[in-house]
Amino acid sequence: MAAERPRATVRLVEEAGASGKVAAVFADIKATKGLDFVPNFWRALATNPDHLEMVWSRLKAVMHPEASGRTSRLDPLTREIIALAVSATNGCAYCVNSHTAAVRKLGLDPEGLGEVMAVVALFNTTNALADGYQVEPDVLPPQD
Amino acid sequence: MAAERPRATVRLVEEAGASGKVAAVFADIKATKGLDFVPNFWRALATNPDHLEMVWSRLKAVMHPEASGRTSRLDPLTREIIALAVSATNGCAYCVNSHTAAVRKLGLDPEGLGEVMAVVALFNTTNALADGYQVEPDVLPPQD
Amino acid sequence: MAAERPRATVRLVEEAGASGKVAAVFADIKATKGLDFVPNFWRALATNPDHLEMVWSRLKAVMHPEASGRTSRLDPLTREIIALAVSATNGCAYCVNSHTAAVRKLGLDPEGLGEVMAVVALFNTTNALADGYQVEPDVLPPQD
Amino acid sequence: MAAERPRATVRLVEEAGASGKVAAVFADIKATKGLDFVPNFWRALATNPDHLEMVWSRLKAVMHPEASGRTSRLDPLTREIIALAVSATNGCAYCVNSHTAAVRKLGLDPEGLGEVMAVVALFNTTNALADGYQVEPDVLPPQD
Amino acid sequence: MAAERPRATVRLVEEAGASGKVAAVFADIKATKGLDFVPNFWRALATNPDHLEMVWSRLKAVMHPEASGRTSRLDPLTREIIALAVSATNGCAYCVNSHTAAVRKLGLDPEGLGEVMAVVALFNTTNALADGYQVEPDVLPPQD
Amino acid sequence: MAAERPRATVRLVEEAGASGKVAAVFADIKATKGLDFVPNFWRALATNPDHLEMVWSRLKAVMHPEASGRTSRLDPLTREIIALAVSATNGCAYCVNSHTAAVRKLGLDPEGLGEVMAVVALFNTTNALADGYQVEPDVLPPQD
Repeated sequence: MAAERPRATVRLVEEAGASGKVAAVFADIKATKGLDFVPNFWRALATNPDHLEMVWSRLKAVMHPEASGRTSRLDPLTREIIALAVSATNGCAYCVNSHTAAVRKLGLDPEGLGEVMAVVALFNTTNALADGYQVEPDVLPPQD
Repeated sequence: MAAERPRATVRLVEEAGASGKVAAVFADIKATKGLDFVPNFWRALATNPDHLEMVWSRLKAVMHPEASGRTSRLDPLTREIIALAVSATNGCAYCVNSHTAAVRKLGLDPEGLGEVMAVVALFNTTNALADGYQVEPDVLPPQD
Repeated sequence: MAAERPRATVRLVEEAGASGKVAAVFADIKATKGLDFVPNFWRALATNPDHLEMVWSRLKAVMHPEASGRTSRLDPLTREIIALAVSATNGCAYCVNSHTAAVRKLGLDPEGLGEVMAVVALFNTTNALADGYQVEPDVLPPQD
Repeated sequence: MAAERPRATVRLVEEAGASGKVAAVFADIKATKGLDFVPNFWRALATNPDHLEMVWSRLKAVMHPEASGRTSRLDPLTREIIALAVSATNGCAYCVNSHTAAVRKLGLDPEGLGEVMAVVALFNTTNALADGYQVEPDVLPPQD
Repeated sequence: MAAERPRATVRLVEEAGASGKVAAVFADIKATKGLDFVPNFWRALATNPDHLEMVWSRLKAVMHPEASGRTSRLDPLTREIIALAVSATNGCAYCVNSHTAAVRKLGLDPEGLGEVMAVVALFNTTNALADGYQVEPDVLPPQD
Repeated sequence: MAAERPRATVRLVEEAGASGKVAAVFADIKATKGLDFVPNFWRALATNPDHLEMVWSRLKAVMHPEASGRTSRLDPLTREIIALAVSATNGCAYCVNSHTAAVRKLGLDPEGLGEVMAVVALFNTTNALADGYQVEPDVLPPQD
């Protein structure tokens, strides 16, 4: 009954006990991302192995295109910056933590992080204003 | 009483009739952005001249740093991509329209736009999952 | 198959054909709000009469406390300003339209509306920043 | 001044000291939900007894229709699944915790929870894409 | 320069001119969903064929599990109700339109739709309250 | 590797070691707000001094208009109530904590806070309903 701090709503799957589809995805996550542990996010998803595989295969395709021989118009830092912008806008703490660590690892220093946050914050302002005044589009976007 | 489609909730300030602070900001917007008209967004804000000036000066500083002799770690396309990511996440139609036009003007083609959307969409998924499972952070972000 | 503009996803209940619970709520809405028509919002809810009654009785209690002999610490304009702040933050077009009309009717002029929007926009910025940096609380709120 | 972890912003009303309207609602919550304690959510709302009564009576009518002799087209598990979908989408930690406990109690196992999350996550993706591309409706919804 | 109503920010790919991966996905969408046209959503995604395939394969797996020989704990109506709950919470017009049509097709009548909306609306209220009071969890969710 | 609770994603700038632009803004924050410490929010922003100055000058202009000799149509309590309404709607914990403390300091008691939350909660409901039914506007807002 006593108030305790929130924790994950499912029992995280232990790496040690994983087998089959889960073990294969866990191994691929560590190899693709160069990690020596499986992040909690994936350990939570592993409670439903099909879903784990689906989300990982999509994340791998979008964020690690080189792993499937695809080239991307966006460099890795830009992709992580988009992830951080979405996470800060949604207020997702786990995601902000994770993508901040990623942009730092890719070379963005705290002042550069501040620039990203400045842009994110600015457009959360203009979004509220455009919606709050119901402003109509000026010009149509290019279509070709 | 008949249903009509939404329109801006304030009368947009006409460029022709603007004077003082409003005229000065309108002129600066057109010069800084290389436009030959004032977008509706700014014409709506102009109903409160102080607010117009405040939002414009912040947007100018963040999005046009070269205009104030400041250098930025982020290039103009990256900044507009962040703006689009925030706008798509918030579902702000005016903003999506405006920032899509901007990224296109800066050289992103429809397939590249699709890559941006793929990243935005992916992290709206992972945000919902991390929040939906209340996943706890794995590692603390770097602090220096 | 041709694209058409969105419209309500249910057939709005006509005031003329309403009976029983729906007719009673419609009459109360018009009397309490001093309107000579029933807004579309309530006509959509009327497709489920129990839900119509539930939402209306709650809105009446919160927004028209004098109708139930209750006094409120908040004046009517403050209550409508909160409604507008929530609606602009959520980007709900119908709601922004409706609550903007209400604050105007209660005496707020376009420049005052600009002040409200300035506060709404500012705190959408600071919310994104506090979440984006995961800032921890400074002080605990008062508890008594 | 030292950073401490967040806690409720009001002093939770103790069950022991409750009287009048608050005591009556507390008793009804425990009886209707089969609980032997009053959840913190209701203890926070009890700082404004009118609001407590309003929210509880609405929740009781929507989530416990049998208590008022009403039949529902939705079974209890479906209703809790909707609550969880809304809470995960909004990123509300208390709510995710509470509705996850409820769906588990109603028989959904961790893999089934994973299916719910898969649907929630998928449509947070498609929502971001439909808004991000401003896609127009294909067909109008049925109206009868 | 004249204000016009928003339209999709990319040129929708015509079904007639589609080839390769896009044509294959378009055909699968129509076959799996029993449609005689390709919804605008997919025609917008088709501007990036890889992304189209990725989103469709995930949606097909989650929403049409029988197509891949998988059984689901959730019936089709429950899955569409979750999609609608997410879409209404996010305020995504295209999505609300589309999923309302789907739940109607699966047999939910307007009054039943009203019940779904009542649950969605109620928990948007309780989410705002739990977050607004920063209520701490009562009990930990089951973990097994 | 062990899970730890989230903390700010940047090292907060110490007041003692601040100099130049940062020291000047810190001093102005304390003087304008009558505080004897610098809140964590500003210490996080200080990792990018330009951004710190930009956000503070905007917040000062909007929330402390008297400091720049401007009069406001909104009193200080109303402004803080808007800030709280936005923060509760966005689910921003730091912000809810901070603005709850502010409204309490400005004289709102817990029951009055309950009234604010009642209005915030109500319109999160109606927003979800208006968006969920795609209700069209009844009347256009005044334009003058």
